[in-house]
Amino acid sequence: MSETRNRQWRVARYPEADEPISSALFEWVERSVPEPTDDQFVVKTLYLAPGPALRGYLDVSHQQFLGNVPVGEVMRGRGIGVIVSSKNSDYTVGEYFVGSLGWQDYSLQQPRGKEFVFSTKKISSPLRPLSLELGILGQSGATAYFGMLEAGRIKAGDNVLVSAAAGGVGSAAGQIARIKGAAKVVGLAGSDKKCQWLINTLGFDRAINYKTADLNDQLAKEFPKGIDLFFDSVGGDILNTGLAHISLNARVAVCGFISTDYDPNADTGPINYRNLLYQRATMQGFIVFDYWERFAEAEQALRQWHSSGELIFCEDLSDGLENMPQAVEDLFAGNNSGVKICWVNNE
Amino acid sequence: MSETRNRQWRVARYPEADEPISSALFEWVERSVPEPTDDQFVVKTLYLAPGPALRGYLDVSHQQFLGNVPVGEVMRGRGIGVIVSSKNSDYTVGEYFVGSLGWQDYSLQQPRGKEFVFSTKKISSPLRPLSLELGILGQSGATAYFGMLEAGRIKAGDNVLVSAAAGGVGSAAGQIARIKGAAKVVGLAGSDKKCQWLINTLGFDRAINYKTADLNDQLAKEFPKGIDLFFDSVGGDILNTGLAHISLNARVAVCGFISTDYDPNADTGPINYRNLLYQRATMQGFIVFDYWERFAEAEQALRQWHSSGELIFCEDLSDGLENMPQAVEDLFAGNNSGVKICWVNNE
Repeated sequence: MSETRNRQWRVARYPEADEPISSALFEWVERSVPEPTDDQFVVKTLYLAPGPALRGYLDVSHQQFLGNVPVGEVMRGRGIGVIVSSKNSDYTVGEYFVGSLGWQDYSLQQPRGKEFVFSTKKISSPLRPLSLELGILGQSGATAYFGMLEAGRIKAGDNVLVSAAAGGVGSAAGQIARIKGAAKVVGLAGSDKKCQWLINTLGFDRAINYKTADLNDQLAKEFPKGIDLFFDSVGGDILNTGLAHISLNARVAVCGFISTDYDPNADTGPINYRNLLYQRATMQGFIVFDYWERFAEAEQALRQWHSSGELIFCEDLSDGLENMPQAVEDLFAGNNSGVKICWVNNE
Repeated sequence: MSETRNRQWRVARYPEADEPISSALFEWVERSVPEPTDDQFVVKTLYLAPGPALRGYLDVSHQQFLGNVPVGEVMRGRGIGVIVSSKNSDYTVGEYFVGSLGWQDYSLQQPRGKEFVFSTKKISSPLRPLSLELGILGQSGATAYFGMLEAGRIKAGDNVLVSAAAGGVGSAAGQIARIKGAAKVVGLAGSDKKCQWLINTLGFDRAINYKTADLNDQLAKEFPKGIDLFFDSVGGDILNTGLAHISLNARVAVCGFISTDYDPNADTGPINYRNLLYQRATMQGFIVFDYWERFAEAEQALRQWHSSGELIFCEDLSDGLENMPQAVEDLFAGNNSGVKICWVNNE
């Protein structure tokens, strides 16, 4: 291993209540590349995939599956890398590895702890581009898969609404609905360009620009018989408006509340929760980690759909570890189409 | 049939948005007793059971399973009576009949239509008192039964919270949870007297007077590991506070929103709906009519629990058809313990 420099973003402080994620929260440092001992190994980061959960890692007021990252530590982040040194016979130099690599060039890995168990895997023959393993074949795809099949209980003939449809999870969720025989799949997105992409590239039946359309009118028009399955990761007004149009025995699969999750001033929920009673409907929250024992099933299905061309993957690529804070800002601003990925190093 | 007078409450007008139910909304008239023709029969009303759904029958802004009662018509109401004349060979004079009798002494019945199908039955050998057939063995009991077993998916060891626990449905729901092996059953009620009754008579483990207690503190104390099953018919602040204490994979069974259902100023829901995601929980609305094909199953179970003494029935008896509007006012004021029943006629 010729490289000795390990660039890192470390957490400098937590954001104020309404402060966006930016480089002001992090410290850029250079350390030496770690050396493995015992059963450890070292992974060189190739790509990182910043997701909405990142904000939770820095928000002490917020319940988070993996907990906050302590100030002074390397920022947590999921990525794909290649093993460059190893004292563990199960992990061989040259193998690819997906897991919690952190915002850094080189991470020391040790096979223990909940984070390792839930979200890491070794890949001998990865698909190319390697970023596929982080997106539609990774956590975004698995979230869409279990959300649609389990919380959403998708069935043929369903009329389906997907919010944040141009995002990494939503774009996969809508396509899975189509693959599973939905009668109609409508996506919500924040620009006309994204809407065209959803229809023309991903095969959504319709797409609504929620920023310019009267969403209530459009949903009434697109769903005259009501929404059978609403896959939502936005919450707030979008969830409330969607709830107004659910059908009898509808399912609302909830995988996030990006609109209000980190808003300290949010103190009310959607009044149309009452429609859950009137329509005898179910709203269920889910987190992809709950299904980790079935990840292989999801991966197999996703790989097959991808290889047959039914499931199209789109990534929104940022360039360079130094741009990670900006990549997160873009993500929260809704600037991405598909899974947000940041290139860090060549192999 | 010696009686010729048929006293009736007819709908005079619909209430203003925030106007309570009172006799001002109805007209008291006396008509003659109807005569059956074709396949009709006439039922003499013995008891009526006013429930929270009544308000919906008069509220044009409100989605209602059975629709509004037109102005000028006899007010809709469920009761038990005895068949006093019949032109239908399936319905014999002297048999008892549970169904939509209306707020009147005598009703003309005809075996057709959704209302008849869903909620009527002929009883040859009723339990005594006859009001049992309206309460714990009737719609209140069936609502509690299907709510606990289906939407709530009650299982042994669950920690259960029941709101409006002193009401007809809630009092049965809490007892069914106990019978099904709940580790702990806590009821919410609006007076210390009701709380004592829940514990000492019905066998709830705990009861909280939500009007005087700090509900959030009390729930934290009673549910250190969280609420596994929350059976709610109140909505609003009670639902929101309960949602703050749900456990991982909790179920929230929703059978009403009596606190906000008829409040035209209610425009927000519970902010803690976000806990459905954090706890990967399910909130499901249900309506007892959805299970009408399984009513016999519920009735059999309820009868058995009642006869073994496991399920205690308590009714809150009003006296006289003329007092029906007052009985409804009392119901909405939360003055009743157990199922609200109004005596109308002797046999």
